[in-house]
Amino acid sequence: MDRRKKEIAILKITGEGRETLNDQVVQESPLTIYLNDQEFVTLLCTPEKQDYLTLGFLRSEGLIKGREDVLSLEVDEENGMVNVETREPGKLSEKLFGKRTITSGCGKGTIFYNVLDSLSESSIKTEIYLNPETISRLMRDLQDRADLFKTTGGVHSSALGTKEGIVFFCEDIGRHNAVDKLIGECIAEDVSLEDKLLITSGRLSSEILLKAAKIGIPVLLSRAAPTALSVELGNKLGVTMVGFIRGKRMNVYSGEWRITEE
Amino acid sequence: MDRRKKEIAILKITGEGRETLNDQVVQESPLTIYLNDQEFVTLLCTPEKQDYLTLGFLRSEGLIKGREDVLSLEVDEENGMVNVETREPGKLSEKLFGKRTITSGCGKGTIFYNVLDSLSESSIKTEIYLNPETISRLMRDLQDRADLFKTTGGVHSSALGTKEGIVFFCEDIGRHNAVDKLIGECIAEDVSLEDKLLITSGRLSSEILLKAAKIGIPVLLSRAAPTALSVELGNKLGVTMVGFIRGKRMNVYSGEWRITEE
Repeated sequence: MDRRKKEIAILKITGEGRETLNDQVVQESPLTIYLNDQEFVTLLCTPEKQDYLTLGFLRSEGLIKGREDVLSLEVDEENGMVNVETREPGKLSEKLFGKRTITSGCGKGTIFYNVLDSLSESSIKTEIYLNPETISRLMRDLQDRADLFKTTGGVHSSALGTKEGIVFFCEDIGRHNAVDKLIGECIAEDVSLEDKLLITSGRLSSEILLKAAKIGIPVLLSRAAPTALSVELGNKLGVTMVGFIRGKRMNVYSGEWRITEE
Repeated sequence: MDRRKKEIAILKITGEGRETLNDQVVQESPLTIYLNDQEFVTLLCTPEKQDYLTLGFLRSEGLIKGREDVLSLEVDEENGMVNVETREPGKLSEKLFGKRTITSGCGKGTIFYNVLDSLSESSIKTEIYLNPETISRLMRDLQDRADLFKTTGGVHSSALGTKEGIVFFCEDIGRHNAVDKLIGECIAEDVSLEDKLLITSGRLSSEILLKAAKIGIPVLLSRAAPTALSVELGNKLGVTMVGFIRGKRMNVYSGEWRITEE
């Protein structure tokens, strides 16, 4: 049984008539992260790789630097919970509840302000060069692997890879979750992040750009659109952004110097 | 000038070659909501209808019930800020900081737990009936109006309407923002919400379902997929959910009794 989807009865209507049949719908499960015995956040996600999601989320939020900061991590799949113990919980608590009101709802606040901090950091100078053919091939590979999308139409797919091909692949109902799961998998498997390319089916919003830039990823490849803010940040932070990759066609929005002719 | 998008120089690559040209990219602007002089949340949004976004967001989060709870609301477009004064700020503060750790990051926590509360409420019984032809027409109308999507490919479109047609329409980089802007516009214009249909280009996640159900919207129409959780909640809360609307084809996931043959 694939825990990531569920078969349910639906009413299918076409120009010719209607019938009740079974269809595959993607699962959406709450995962509540308890950090040093305090309830921290509830994410709605595709129920797989919750350990990677937890690691990646904590890393993206700047709450851990790597695996060495995590003393224990236990996922309770049945109840949608994960318990994490980190080193120096006191410092963490200060970081979390000190500086700024933590936001609610769609809660983009904390991430956005971290952006401004990152702007003062030096830009990414990693010398990776790739040509349009490589980019097309990586996007094709992403789409070929997207089996949950093919059956449910309800998820985003993302991958981390090199010019040679995809290293880690992931599908999730949330664009952010998908990227966090990949980051978490790199941390767990002790694979370097800063020489990887991020390939995604989703849009390149400023938050995705920043999530990637914060861990040093130099290239983002997407089937979809960027925003004016993400392009601006991409230029400032030295990130190459390629969007609307469809076969041999694509738009380069920032960091063109990494895209070669051949 | 259209503040919602920006012209930037991009490198366009096709099978035939490459050229630098100007392209339209969607704007993504931070809007920080100050609630009774306290910084509350920063949303990343398409810079228009920020007043509606603020009203709708506060209503969706259960922080106001209607326009009468808002004493003043001033948008500072230049600086991406809005100041809101509400009645009984003391009570609000208790609600915000009392019960539960407010979540950070992708911050789905608060909304999700409100779900469980809403489940105890009675389900939506509004007797609205509509046929597939009406549904197709409303979706076509939504797509016809989506001019920002047509030029930038970077936004979701949503609308509130009746069987007769679309009443309020909105495009935003965020699915949630788009719905909140519509809710806010209804509140500001003193238009009833509970007899409206929600038509959207985006997926029907549990959060969108709940946002709509909390204000009594009985029907959700989408071009995209639902999730297993949203279908489950749709059934419990009495919401009719139709997805994958493409011309005359569509899938009815919950509340079939509102969909008539003719």
